[in-house]
Amino acid sequence: MKALVYHGAGKKAWEEKPSPSIIDQTDALIKIYKTTICGTDLHILKGDVPEVTDGRILGHEGVGTVEEVGSAVTGFKKDDRVLISCISGCGKCEYCKKGMYSHCEKGGWILGHLIDGTQAEYVRIPFADNSLYHIPEGADEEALVMLSDILPTALECGVLNGQVKPGDTVAVVGAGPIGLAVLITAQFYTPAAIIIVDIDDNRLQVAGTFGATHTINSSTENTLEKIMSLTDGKGVDVAIEAVGIPATFELCESIIAPGGRIANVGVHGKSVSLHLEKLWSKNITITTRLVDTVSTSMLLKTVTAKKLDPAKLITHHFALNDIVNAYDTFENAAREKTLKVILTNE
Amino acid sequence: MKALVYHGAGKKAWEEKPSPSIIDQTDALIKIYKTTICGTDLHILKGDVPEVTDGRILGHEGVGTVEEVGSAVTGFKKDDRVLISCISGCGKCEYCKKGMYSHCEKGGWILGHLIDGTQAEYVRIPFADNSLYHIPEGADEEALVMLSDILPTALECGVLNGQVKPGDTVAVVGAGPIGLAVLITAQFYTPAAIIIVDIDDNRLQVAGTFGATHTINSSTENTLEKIMSLTDGKGVDVAIEAVGIPATFELCESIIAPGGRIANVGVHGKSVSLHLEKLWSKNITITTRLVDTVSTSMLLKTVTAKKLDPAKLITHHFALNDIVNAYDTFENAAREKTLKVILTNE
Amino acid sequence: MKALVYHGAGKKAWEEKPSPSIIDQTDALIKIYKTTICGTDLHILKGDVPEVTDGRILGHEGVGTVEEVGSAVTGFKKDDRVLISCISGCGKCEYCKKGMYSHCEKGGWILGHLIDGTQAEYVRIPFADNSLYHIPEGADEEALVMLSDILPTALECGVLNGQVKPGDTVAVVGAGPIGLAVLITAQFYTPAAIIIVDIDDNRLQVAGTFGATHTINSSTENTLEKIMSLTDGKGVDVAIEAVGIPATFELCESIIAPGGRIANVGVHGKSVSLHLEKLWSKNITITTRLVDTVSTSMLLKTVTAKKLDPAKLITHHFALNDIVNAYDTFENAAREKTLKVILTNE
Amino acid sequence: MKALVYHGAGKKAWEEKPSPSIIDQTDALIKIYKTTICGTDLHILKGDVPEVTDGRILGHEGVGTVEEVGSAVTGFKKDDRVLISCISGCGKCEYCKKGMYSHCEKGGWILGHLIDGTQAEYVRIPFADNSLYHIPEGADEEALVMLSDILPTALECGVLNGQVKPGDTVAVVGAGPIGLAVLITAQFYTPAAIIIVDIDDNRLQVAGTFGATHTINSSTENTLEKIMSLTDGKGVDVAIEAVGIPATFELCESIIAPGGRIANVGVHGKSVSLHLEKLWSKNITITTRLVDTVSTSMLLKTVTAKKLDPAKLITHHFALNDIVNAYDTFENAAREKTLKVILTNE
Repeated sequence: MKALVYHGAGKKAWEEKPSPSIIDQTDALIKIYKTTICGTDLHILKGDVPEVTDGRILGHEGVGTVEEVGSAVTGFKKDDRVLISCISGCGKCEYCKKGMYSHCEKGGWILGHLIDGTQAEYVRIPFADNSLYHIPEGADEEALVMLSDILPTALECGVLNGQVKPGDTVAVVGAGPIGLAVLITAQFYTPAAIIIVDIDDNRLQVAGTFGATHTINSSTENTLEKIMSLTDGKGVDVAIEAVGIPATFELCESIIAPGGRIANVGVHGKSVSLHLEKLWSKNITITTRLVDTVSTSMLLKTVTAKKLDPAKLITHHFALNDIVNAYDTFENAAREKTLKVILTNE
Repeated sequence: MKALVYHGAGKKAWEEKPSPSIIDQTDALIKIYKTTICGTDLHILKGDVPEVTDGRILGHEGVGTVEEVGSAVTGFKKDDRVLISCISGCGKCEYCKKGMYSHCEKGGWILGHLIDGTQAEYVRIPFADNSLYHIPEGADEEALVMLSDILPTALECGVLNGQVKPGDTVAVVGAGPIGLAVLITAQFYTPAAIIIVDIDDNRLQVAGTFGATHTINSSTENTLEKIMSLTDGKGVDVAIEAVGIPATFELCESIIAPGGRIANVGVHGKSVSLHLEKLWSKNITITTRLVDTVSTSMLLKTVTAKKLDPAKLITHHFALNDIVNAYDTFENAAREKTLKVILTNE
Repeated sequence: MKALVYHGAGKKAWEEKPSPSIIDQTDALIKIYKTTICGTDLHILKGDVPEVTDGRILGHEGVGTVEEVGSAVTGFKKDDRVLISCISGCGKCEYCKKGMYSHCEKGGWILGHLIDGTQAEYVRIPFADNSLYHIPEGADEEALVMLSDILPTALECGVLNGQVKPGDTVAVVGAGPIGLAVLITAQFYTPAAIIIVDIDDNRLQVAGTFGATHTINSSTENTLEKIMSLTDGKGVDVAIEAVGIPATFELCESIIAPGGRIANVGVHGKSVSLHLEKLWSKNITITTRLVDTVSTSMLLKTVTAKKLDPAKLITHHFALNDIVNAYDTFENAAREKTLKVILTNE
Repeated sequence: MKALVYHGAGKKAWEEKPSPSIIDQTDALIKIYKTTICGTDLHILKGDVPEVTDGRILGHEGVGTVEEVGSAVTGFKKDDRVLISCISGCGKCEYCKKGMYSHCEKGGWILGHLIDGTQAEYVRIPFADNSLYHIPEGADEEALVMLSDILPTALECGVLNGQVKPGDTVAVVGAGPIGLAVLITAQFYTPAAIIIVDIDDNRLQVAGTFGATHTINSSTENTLEKIMSLTDGKGVDVAIEAVGIPATFELCESIIAPGGRIANVGVHGKSVSLHLEKLWSKNITITTRLVDTVSTSMLLKTVTAKKLDPAKLITHHFALNDIVNAYDTFENAAREKTLKVILTNE
């Protein structure tokens, strides 16, 4: 089969690889129908994720068709249409029993990371019963690719950890795909205002069409002043960091109201300064999280009920074998006005 | 009357001051019976709290007798025996309605800070109906002085924010009075293990008698290694910072298990490094809080029911007019083996 | 002044009464601008609420202008435009401190019940600082009358107690004004489906336009069968009782899924059969509540942010002095297709 | 092998049965070391549980040794010492993913109910990885038999559902083994008072030694009056029903304070009257639950930490092959002063 293979920092190729086969009784083999590229894949390609070794097939998102299941798989059978979760959970360990699949002792985020991933014609999915989801009849399968990672990440790490409530004022710092996914899923809880901050006017404009009530271009406006002015000097109830650098996290620290919540979504490579000299008495909560994908069933219900339209995050389409071009488009997101790309295995 | 008056960094005096009188209809005048000294008073005396100005009477803890009430006070009358909360709450503002009295728009921590405090023969208490508590019949009034600040602070900022649960492994970093108060109140929730860390062997020994299951002297032992060894390499479920310096906060960051909670109790003067490069994916929660004293009624019930013995935090007694010596004993806590001192207005 | 006065079961009159005056320092006098009639007023008029005595002015909802405030009122002054809460809270008692204003030791639901109410040209509001709300600049004052009682009741007793969550299937039993208010506020939390049950086709049709995904006329359809069919035989996640009779409560018992929540909103005059022989092992939660109006500020924010349009509950308008006709229209709701009526004191 | 076999209402025998063998890959075979008898077994023997058919081996509690595991079992191997949960969970279905193992689509309470149980020399345990627990080194294995059912039931259905908090006043209605287990586990949360109600003076006396602060013999005292007198007329914060008949549930309704929680633990055979005419406005919560055994790991930790001593529930010991006498002793609990019996397979 063909797959997108990592060959060390800066190097990748669409090349021939042996097709995967069932290793454990709890595995399933999936023929990929559609997949996508994640910001994390770009991190890997920069060499920032040293556990990813030469020869690894990338990708941890997608929908497809079950080709074969191991003998212990009971919930899926050949030809079932499935959504692949980016997180694999054994369903048995202490963490899985708590719903913290991200820290599963045998799974967690392993696809396209510690084992071969979904940017390929076929993929082996461990712990299939706990890591795949049936695609509802009549669903827009392409849109569901957004449920593999970006939407549960936005919802769980951003919105749920941030405890967004009706009437809240929420700031989302970062209007990339993940920030926009936060913006969309935050609206499940009817906040009064969602302020979105970025340096890319196109993305801010998109954010406006996705439900942001206020947009701030932090390269041209004084973000702190503007947010304080919008909130009568109190700051926001919830600040969601969706970039992953010290400056944006510290912005969240400066705009949070007493009693507020800072929910980190960004992947950070450096420590940040936590201004406890100001925050110790401010009754705030800061959270971090690797997505657990415990919300996938709920997201499927909201999509089926047409309360959530994941398709609007998709801006570009490619054939799977054109994935190298797709990476180029995704990497040059500002230039190409890219949010998420879809790769179809035709 | 006589009072302990702040005269700028490093200067205090027990001297004559005019007795307070009712200013607002919601005030009460209290004749102090017993009061104490807080670590915060030492901060003020170092000049670390610039809002405290020359001439201010210090102190924000105590029990006493109502001398007079303003015309709008309905819950208290002359001669009632009362516990004074360190936090004054108007009961009407947005924050008070949420139970966040610490951030009351007209109150909060003002006693011995922005208005004259309790280290005096008399004190004016604003918003008396929401800031005083009736002393239950037969109570040990001296012990209740611990309910003005230290016990609700330990419970709310440490134990409740840390979400201590039965079976949890809890680390308390700092075995000063506040750390010991955390240790005591954490036991409300029956954790399986409470590890306490300090550099003072006497305090660690006291912690052992107060219910710590493990003690670590961080000046002579490798705290990180020992905690990891005690927790099978996972770290603790809850880490409670009760010192207020970067090193102890960062220790909490390094010992926290995936899914764990870091509850800050310490008063910090500097920022700390938050290692998001390690923590971003660890599903942790960090909280800060100025005590709201929303737990005071509950604490009174547990004391009355003999489930909590605040008296064990008290090591030294002085007459109120001997308060300068009491400060000396409290400041030299290691030498004097001081936890909390009681000052009695005889 | 003129007021609507209760004279025993079945008797009411729009008649001359002395204008109220300030009694306690915490009172405010309000000149009513707009008020409405509640289902509870009809209960009173049937003689079902024996604490209401001959001569009582009815009504517990409305907006108006402050005429005068007592000396202890700090948050309001003459000429302020205000929303009146149906619940009066002293802000000081054990219940108020818990946010359970409904059970305030000196207040609770007293307006138009134990003291004179709002269906009058003037009304005295006790505990004004905790029982009035400033009307935001530019607000539709008439719509805000819905925030005195019906919307916080629907939200708190129905939606919050029922713990409506994204993706849930919710049944609302009863499509009267309160059931419709539940329907509207449930959408704050983006349930996947809201099934509404009633016997009045007009109300069901209105429910459809208010966001119900399914409507059932229980007089012509088999409600249990239809709900089971809609939910794959599992039942609903949340059942909200908004009628107040045994049959509708027992319907909720029969349609609830394992793990589900039954939230009672209806005012009941009789006991119901709780089928513990079926429910003991079903992991369900049943709640009751008299509205606490703790959500009023949040509702004001959502109205201001245009996330909630209370005006759509209003179907009829009358001059305040035409209130006897307004009662007739409200009592004959099916014939008149009445939801809520607005009375304006011109 | 020998086993205790049900032969229709009123009939049971200790007789020869074929030894079980592995059926599904997720099964384990356990050699029983110790087991016990549950009140539910008595219900079955009365013929109250019609799904239990002639020939069924009873019992759903016990500890033992793994004899053999199916090919998909990864967490256990031959010779492991294990605790058996009364609830079997597949770990994969919608309910298991929510931690509601009681309603597992393929499991739930099936042992000694729909499949053969633990009152036998050997038992087959389905879904072994999610239904067995490793016995910690050095544990009192006999005491751990109390963790199969009675202690998680008491904790989850009673204490957790009742939301027992520090300072609360709790009433436990019923001082049988399950009521006493509620009494023990309620103390995890340090309530101020625990009132226990029963008609058996011996059990009330035992309750006193287990931590009850007040005992009421409802056959000789006016329970309602006494509880109201103990609670200043307010009623209790939490009422836990641990009997299973209408009278005791309705007692809970009458003693609950505004804002209180009624947690049902009893197995009910009849409906009860829910007095909504009084309770509709009282802001109460009623819960039901079949134990999910989600707390088993936590209970193991508290036992290991010596915060919980399950052995004190055990009053009588028998050899497993003397189980018919053990049933007699358990059925005549008042006469024999029986709480829990232990049966040992020697």
